[in-house]
Amino acid sequence: MPQDSKRRRRSGGRAGNAERRGAMAIEQMPWNPPVNIDRPVEPLYEEGVMAVHDGAMRILEEIGIEILNPEALEIFRASGGCTIKGENLRMGRDFVMEMIAKAPEQWTITPRNADRTITVGGNNLLFGNVSSPPSYWDMNLGRKVTGNREMCQNLFRLSQYFNCIHFVGGYPVEPQDIHPSIRHLDVLFDKLTLTDKAAHAYCLGKERVEDVMEMVRIAGGLTDEEFEATPRMYTNINSTSPLKHDFPMLDGWMRLARRNQGLIVTPFTLAGAMAPVTMSGAVAQSLAEGLVAVVLAQLIRPGAACAIGTFTSNVDMKSGAPAFGTPEYMRATQMTGQLARYYKLPMRASGVCAANVPDGQAMWETSNSLWSAVQAGANVVYHAAGWLEGGLIASPEKFVMDCEILQQIQRYMDPSLTATGPDEIAIDAIREVGDQGHFFGIQHTQDRYETAFYQPYLSDWRNFEAWEAAGGVWTAQRAHQTYQDILAEFEAPPMDVAIREELSAFVERRKAEGGAPTDF
Amino acid sequence: MPQDSKRRRRSGGRAGNAERRGAMAIEQMPWNPPVNIDRPVEPLYEEGVMAVHDGAMRILEEIGIEILNPEALEIFRASGGCTIKGENLRMGRDFVMEMIAKAPEQWTITPRNADRTITVGGNNLLFGNVSSPPSYWDMNLGRKVTGNREMCQNLFRLSQYFNCIHFVGGYPVEPQDIHPSIRHLDVLFDKLTLTDKAAHAYCLGKERVEDVMEMVRIAGGLTDEEFEATPRMYTNINSTSPLKHDFPMLDGWMRLARRNQGLIVTPFTLAGAMAPVTMSGAVAQSLAEGLVAVVLAQLIRPGAACAIGTFTSNVDMKSGAPAFGTPEYMRATQMTGQLARYYKLPMRASGVCAANVPDGQAMWETSNSLWSAVQAGANVVYHAAGWLEGGLIASPEKFVMDCEILQQIQRYMDPSLTATGPDEIAIDAIREVGDQGHFFGIQHTQDRYETAFYQPYLSDWRNFEAWEAAGGVWTAQRAHQTYQDILAEFEAPPMDVAIREELSAFVERRKAEGGAPTDF
Repeated sequence: MPQDSKRRRRSGGRAGNAERRGAMAIEQMPWNPPVNIDRPVEPLYEEGVMAVHDGAMRILEEIGIEILNPEALEIFRASGGCTIKGENLRMGRDFVMEMIAKAPEQWTITPRNADRTITVGGNNLLFGNVSSPPSYWDMNLGRKVTGNREMCQNLFRLSQYFNCIHFVGGYPVEPQDIHPSIRHLDVLFDKLTLTDKAAHAYCLGKERVEDVMEMVRIAGGLTDEEFEATPRMYTNINSTSPLKHDFPMLDGWMRLARRNQGLIVTPFTLAGAMAPVTMSGAVAQSLAEGLVAVVLAQLIRPGAACAIGTFTSNVDMKSGAPAFGTPEYMRATQMTGQLARYYKLPMRASGVCAANVPDGQAMWETSNSLWSAVQAGANVVYHAAGWLEGGLIASPEKFVMDCEILQQIQRYMDPSLTATGPDEIAIDAIREVGDQGHFFGIQHTQDRYETAFYQPYLSDWRNFEAWEAAGGVWTAQRAHQTYQDILAEFEAPPMDVAIREELSAFVERRKAEGGAPTDF
Repeated sequence: MPQDSKRRRRSGGRAGNAERRGAMAIEQMPWNPPVNIDRPVEPLYEEGVMAVHDGAMRILEEIGIEILNPEALEIFRASGGCTIKGENLRMGRDFVMEMIAKAPEQWTITPRNADRTITVGGNNLLFGNVSSPPSYWDMNLGRKVTGNREMCQNLFRLSQYFNCIHFVGGYPVEPQDIHPSIRHLDVLFDKLTLTDKAAHAYCLGKERVEDVMEMVRIAGGLTDEEFEATPRMYTNINSTSPLKHDFPMLDGWMRLARRNQGLIVTPFTLAGAMAPVTMSGAVAQSLAEGLVAVVLAQLIRPGAACAIGTFTSNVDMKSGAPAFGTPEYMRATQMTGQLARYYKLPMRASGVCAANVPDGQAMWETSNSLWSAVQAGANVVYHAAGWLEGGLIASPEKFVMDCEILQQIQRYMDPSLTATGPDEIAIDAIREVGDQGHFFGIQHTQDRYETAFYQPYLSDWRNFEAWEAAGGVWTAQRAHQTYQDILAEFEAPPMDVAIREELSAFVERRKAEGGAPTDF
């Protein structure tokens, strides 16, 4: 990457620092998406699961969902299993269950680097970067600013750099210095050249969706047939809660379904605002809205790769502002997990907070949301790094801090931590040390000390005096330095020159054609 | 309390602020110790539980524990179930299991205010303040200083103020401006007058232990018989890992056992230092050390109120520094929970971190440790508020931040969050709002909006612009202001004048007698 080489030259001092530490900004865990080995936390008994399911089915049977897309309505109509009045769509539970049973319990996304293939479903746990904030904040600026392309590129660099980020969600910040008609072209070019992980398309009009699929195909060096042989990318759509799916989201959803790409539907049901104030009601509504999209995908392509997402949280009843990582949020996520397993669908959750800066509140809210995703048995965790202000701000420091938590979750899922063989119970070592010695020096420790414990890259475990002597730097400021160090050493993943040229030519041609219409 | 009245007068501005907000520094949850409604996280299968149990038993059978207390050794010898060589004590698993079966699965502590009675065991979850740091840090000072009595008193005020703090552990900071010979007298006077929750005695020599028991008896207005009728207070002892119990800890343990008070034993087994580098080995060793003390208590008083604690963590293998709230720490805590249930003993865990200041790292480490305590099914959570630097620093800001997390855990355990009755699934509300409306205004929401969601006292849920306009205050600084507001409005719990005088006279008399010897 020319711009990255230039950056490295410009920032020789920081690069020099990184080199003195051993040629890497940080020592991180290798690429190894974790498998969730814990039994999920299940707040609902069987009757509770059935009550939420019944609620979702009654919504679909008695109230219906508004489908603001004639083509989608036609597909539902042709199925023979639905009742349609105007744009109101209803369907019986037997039909719903029959259709969603066609969806696979797990599926893969194969990005241009096949080593980064991810499996969605089962006990697999995948983390992605923050997506879609309009604004940006970092410690250097110290203020909230409008997102631009450079910020977006730098957040792509973090998404690629961290091995605990397994897929690259939408725009990690909205680059508002690029005209909306061509923004998707420039950002996808950046995403596909700066990263080699599974990529995402926004469903914002047919031109954007088709352009992105074409760019992912080109970046992978794939024929159309190869592109459609297995999911190479994915989208995430939101319903317009309450009880509505709008035109462009469904349009994109159907385009990806036809081409066999990954499909995630995530209603945004804020309890007390767009959904009932009671959490199980908000979850039931969310499921009803989501299942409709899954049914649509299965009607288009039986076996289409679908996942159901949750974005159910509560509002601050004093102000109406959305809250995240709350106790209610955690329980809604866990309940959704129980229902996703009942429906045998992979599940998406998120790493979220309402905090405005990467401080203590940001960390307890984000910890709550990430751990509840883990406890829920979520497979795909969106916004797992970099999110602030309820998703309105992307922050590189928050990104670096969140990845520290994500690595710890990965390590937590390593079965070696709780192994109980004779070598781990270690009676001989305990006998050897007896009541006087110390375990540091013995062979049992020496054989294991390099890998026995998780080594954080961001936590400062020095005592106060040593920490103070080193400047007394708080976490967010340390994260800022790590971010700078990563940028200084970042190298884009390799890409064939011919592919890069083809991608670039595609972008230029589509720009010359005017990009996508912006009048919707 | 005279000093509190004076403080309120001195700090009229802050008190005025508090009054304008409605006469309270914060709106907090009422006193209502939570019940853990979740199934524990259990990383070990049955065979794993048996392997750790077998390891603990083999340590007791084949290696033994050094008992540096002749009286305790004599009790073990007289039992007829132990093998003693010098100070080395061994016992067979049948004897261990027979003895610990005498311990109750749950028991209560009744402090001077009987409304603050707590139940240890079952699914009950209790939180206590930080105990024993030698140093103190707050935002005003901005540096680490030696603890003194005023700091200790202020942390007692926080411990009393917050309803999510259910018992008052040891000294929340060590008041080093009081001579060690009389420190326990002054601190217990402060503790018993500034708080009315279950109190703790350090096992640091017979005079201190007896003085504290006497002071708790006086504060409760109890006869000796009443004091001994049920636990009125408790102690926590640590073994001297590896494989040793020292004299004063066991001395105090036995004194409390004889008088029917609460007994918690918590080995401090840092894996790779005082215990095997493998976590299951460190847990097995911790259990062996702990169970010996439980056996001792049951020999003294069959049915003595015991709990087994865990303080198993890992070290930073680069520096040897202890680490807390790590993935290894979480798993060790959960494994200990499984074994505590196997032994049918109440369990103690902790809220801990290695961070030096109340920043992001402090919150993710503390969240990890607190949630792992919850997941482990721990009954008693020590150091749940105010701990920094691996327990070397107490901080009021950290205390206020931690209590925010504790309240969220309390709320998380409220079964109403996951209720699934018809009123919660709320089909009628969903039908009423349909696809156009908003849930804010409907009756279903209006009937519930005041209690539907947890309301934090410290999280700032305003958007960035409103937050910035209000000063752009980060969490720790907000916590400092909350701390000041609480001090300004604090009122000590009522105490009968005659009892207060008796307590005061006891302290004066014991001071005149020279307090406790300091040559141990």
